[in-house]
Amino acid sequence: MLIPSICSLIYKEDDLYSFLISGIVTFIVGLCAEQITKSGSKIDEFNRKDGFFIASFCWICAIAFGALPYLIYGVFGNPIDAFFESTAGFTTTGASTVENIEILPHGILFWRSFTQWLGGMGILILAIAILPKLSVGGMQLMNLESPGPSAEKLTPRIAETAKYLWAIYLFLSFILFIILKLLGLPIFDSIIHVFSTVSIGGFSNQNLSIGAYNSVAVEFTIIAFMFISGINFALLFWLSRGKFRKLFSNPEFKIYVFILLASVTLVTIDLFTYMIPSLFDAFRYSAFNVISISTTTGFTTTDYDTWPVFSKWLLIILMFIGGCSGSTAGSIKVMRIVILVKHAFREIKKNIYPNAVLPIRFGKNVLEDNIVSSIINFFIIYIFIFTLSTIILTLDDVSIITAFSACAATIGNVGPGMELVGPSGNYAALSNLSKIVLSFLMIIGRLELFAILVIFTPSFWKN
Amino acid sequence: MLIPSICSLIYKEDDLYSFLISGIVTFIVGLCAEQITKSGSKIDEFNRKDGFFIASFCWICAIAFGALPYLIYGVFGNPIDAFFESTAGFTTTGASTVENIEILPHGILFWRSFTQWLGGMGILILAIAILPKLSVGGMQLMNLESPGPSAEKLTPRIAETAKYLWAIYLFLSFILFIILKLLGLPIFDSIIHVFSTVSIGGFSNQNLSIGAYNSVAVEFTIIAFMFISGINFALLFWLSRGKFRKLFSNPEFKIYVFILLASVTLVTIDLFTYMIPSLFDAFRYSAFNVISISTTTGFTTTDYDTWPVFSKWLLIILMFIGGCSGSTAGSIKVMRIVILVKHAFREIKKNIYPNAVLPIRFGKNVLEDNIVSSIINFFIIYIFIFTLSTIILTLDDVSIITAFSACAATIGNVGPGMELVGPSGNYAALSNLSKIVLSFLMIIGRLELFAILVIFTPSFWKN
Repeated sequence: MLIPSICSLIYKEDDLYSFLISGIVTFIVGLCAEQITKSGSKIDEFNRKDGFFIASFCWICAIAFGALPYLIYGVFGNPIDAFFESTAGFTTTGASTVENIEILPHGILFWRSFTQWLGGMGILILAIAILPKLSVGGMQLMNLESPGPSAEKLTPRIAETAKYLWAIYLFLSFILFIILKLLGLPIFDSIIHVFSTVSIGGFSNQNLSIGAYNSVAVEFTIIAFMFISGINFALLFWLSRGKFRKLFSNPEFKIYVFILLASVTLVTIDLFTYMIPSLFDAFRYSAFNVISISTTTGFTTTDYDTWPVFSKWLLIILMFIGGCSGSTAGSIKVMRIVILVKHAFREIKKNIYPNAVLPIRFGKNVLEDNIVSSIINFFIIYIFIFTLSTIILTLDDVSIITAFSACAATIGNVGPGMELVGPSGNYAALSNLSKIVLSFLMIIGRLELFAILVIFTPSFWKN
Repeated sequence: MLIPSICSLIYKEDDLYSFLISGIVTFIVGLCAEQITKSGSKIDEFNRKDGFFIASFCWICAIAFGALPYLIYGVFGNPIDAFFESTAGFTTTGASTVENIEILPHGILFWRSFTQWLGGMGILILAIAILPKLSVGGMQLMNLESPGPSAEKLTPRIAETAKYLWAIYLFLSFILFIILKLLGLPIFDSIIHVFSTVSIGGFSNQNLSIGAYNSVAVEFTIIAFMFISGINFALLFWLSRGKFRKLFSNPEFKIYVFILLASVTLVTIDLFTYMIPSLFDAFRYSAFNVISISTTTGFTTTDYDTWPVFSKWLLIILMFIGGCSGSTAGSIKVMRIVILVKHAFREIKKNIYPNAVLPIRFGKNVLEDNIVSSIINFFIIYIFIFTLSTIILTLDDVSIITAFSACAATIGNVGPGMELVGPSGNYAALSNLSKIVLSFLMIIGRLELFAILVIFTPSFWKN
């Protein structure tokens, strides 16, 4: 919280005190917590329950304390809005209840995007080092498939894995910063968008998001970095060691590229046919917005809510797919979708040959039943929670599309939805109940559902 | 086809020849087919492939020949509309492309509803006698759970099971006819609505559906029979033998009643709060339309498309649940939803105790893994096919809600959807491609997905 206060000092704005107070409060609480845990009995090894609890608790603490600067500065009249904004930050969702972003002081704008950048770091560790060990939603596949022999063999301790991942993350951030600066963006804008791009967050300091710059070069640079940040970071690690084959032989990466190319092409054709007379412009808008939504970033360069129905609906469906596992992208993720489709085809076959043993392969690996089962459950629970949430949102008497897309965009950590919560709108008009539901969706979506859900089961609290 | 021609004779209308020609064509083709199969080698036992093929082929033949009267009389200018209407009949969906039902001759109206009644008969056999033997989508549970010792033990041969089921079906039809007649409906209207109610079809001879009679007594009579027809017929069989306990101890039945009661209550409150000043009227409209959609019948007494968003969205979600397995209702069905929810809870628990053996129970029975697995796959494939179809429908540039509800209402065999395809609209304005897609959805929905899907796999055609 001291870092955004530097912004406040540079721009001589009145948000300085909000960061200082937030920082002091957080520091004191942290100090007390440290003293309490020190006085308790020492635990050397974590069991599964501890793992889930720590992952969830840390995230929720970060979000709660991260809301302090908004609260103290008074960005929102409603404390739930502050919590919502902080959740959208740390979960790298990018949904916002701010009606006019551009009037906020630089420090607050910095903090919004900075929470996304920090959240992105947290996700990498969670997705590549912690959740696979807890066998959450098929994430154990990350060990098995992606980083060659195994992530564990390569880097025996979580701390070392973290170091490698963060090196890549910092490297990407640095390169993107240099390019955006060279393309003429102000330093402040460059930093903001670096934070929100590599974390697949989507917060901007412009009301029109990336569309404000109206620059083809900036747009395609951001496209490239959204695309890269949507790739499994374990693959990026191998790429950094010159092992290109690992990337191009990865089945998830191939389908990820295919989905993006196919969607961009279809939307380009749709826009060119019904709306935008220039093929290049159709491609430009399609490429940016489709890849932004697909990777669950949430930047926009146009109000895609005015697009033809086919393109709009495709965008909503892409919100349910997302990027690769082990990236900063959210949603169900390409790996799970691929395995679900393969599983569906196998089951149709099984109706003809009920006793046949038909293994499901992912790349060269035959998947174990329990991994497939985890992935299926992830999907079922995702759809069920999504559906229940949409019902609650319709109580606000918003349109069905608003309710549907708001839930899809938050559980998938995308950010903007459609209609009321679309690129030209925001989440401010929703009721407090809806905002709480959506904050919950952002958190469980980000923690791959189970890390949070297990805490709500009675058996978690037994013994 | 000779039965509706009696209608044509009674009302002295010009649709007589269309039934006679259709009848002759169907008879000749049938005769030829019989000769061809007689000359082939005799098969005494069917394997799984044969089972799937016969189930699908019979249904598609019935639909194709059932479209002849519409085609020959010229109800539609477009042959695809005739096929669509026939599909909506035999699959008991009730989706229609007829813009003004009331100008059609009595014979044609009779035929529309009669195809639903015949389709309903076919479904009972399919769902209770054939699909369980083919282990389709968890239908094998029907053997295990519902009819006490086992359907097979009770009635060893399909023909005998059929006799019992049809006896109940005929009995329900007869009682409903008597009541509707006593309530003052014309004989013709009574017959039409008997056919469409017990089959959970939904075709009416009135443009305003059941709303045309504006009679509380008629509405609550139809509600009762939609409710009964949505119950597993194996349970109705036991009920007819005085074994009431079997009904009330059945877990699917209990949840079915709970879902209906909860939904009717919620919608009543919503309507009363925002739209209808009289609580009784709110309840009356809610009860009829919610139970009609929930059981996948598709009758309406009001244009629910004008309802508040919460009620509308709840109706769409109910389209995905449907009635009980082994009834004439369509959609995913309560049994599968219950097992999916239980499975989801188990998996959340499994994250804490990965090695625990946590069986899923349905009533007193512990479900085998392969049954649970079939049900999960049914759900995944249902959602995937639904999603792909909605994308195709948006190519017509209809609204997202139209596309979404049209696909939900056809794959779930409901009938009317929302907006363009809602109670005040119909399916006529859609493109041929969409109509073909929706016809396909009606058929695969009715045949519990797999019976049709296996036919599209290359391995089905090997050897």
